[in-house]
Amino acid sequence: MIRAEVIVTLKDGILDPEGKTITGALGGVGIEGIKEIGTGKYFHIQLSTNNLEKARSSTEAVCEKLLSNPVIEKYTYKIIEE
Amino acid sequence: MIRAEVIVTLKDGILDPEGKTITGALGGVGIEGIKEIGTGKYFHIQLSTNNLEKARSSTEAVCEKLLSNPVIEKYTYKIIEE
Repeated sequence: MIRAEVIVTLKDGILDPEGKTITGALGGVGIEGIKEIGTGKYFHIQLSTNNLEKARSSTEAVCEKLLSNPVIEKYTYKIIEE
Repeated sequence: MIRAEVIVTLKDGILDPEGKTITGALGGVGIEGIKEIGTGKYFHIQLSTNNLEKARSSTEAVCEKLLSNPVIEKYTYKIIEE
């Protein structure tokens, strides 16, 4: 069985208001030792193919067409064989 | 410098409507070879401490207090020294 894990984050220079809000809230809940928090999205994908090449191309297709907005976001993924 | 990466996902049995919607949209954009997609959140944390133990406890504290809802979500994290 093949699965994939995808992480989508904002490109460098794109504002991350959610991350800024969380970073600003740290003091209020008494957490020290953290300088900055940035946010992103995570997806786990269950592939229905056993072909590693097909798994890779399906994962890249879904990243580009559904999971990320290529104007402001970038993605990384890893394929896991189990 | 120490940083951390956190992944927050829904606990087993909790409905993932966003994942279901993305999975249902696969056919419409012509993507084959994917059985199911599940969603989660990703956070990257810049620590301001160089103490590994403190980094770990700050990361766990922020996961529990701000980044996840312990009723429906679970988290994993890894600490990265650079």
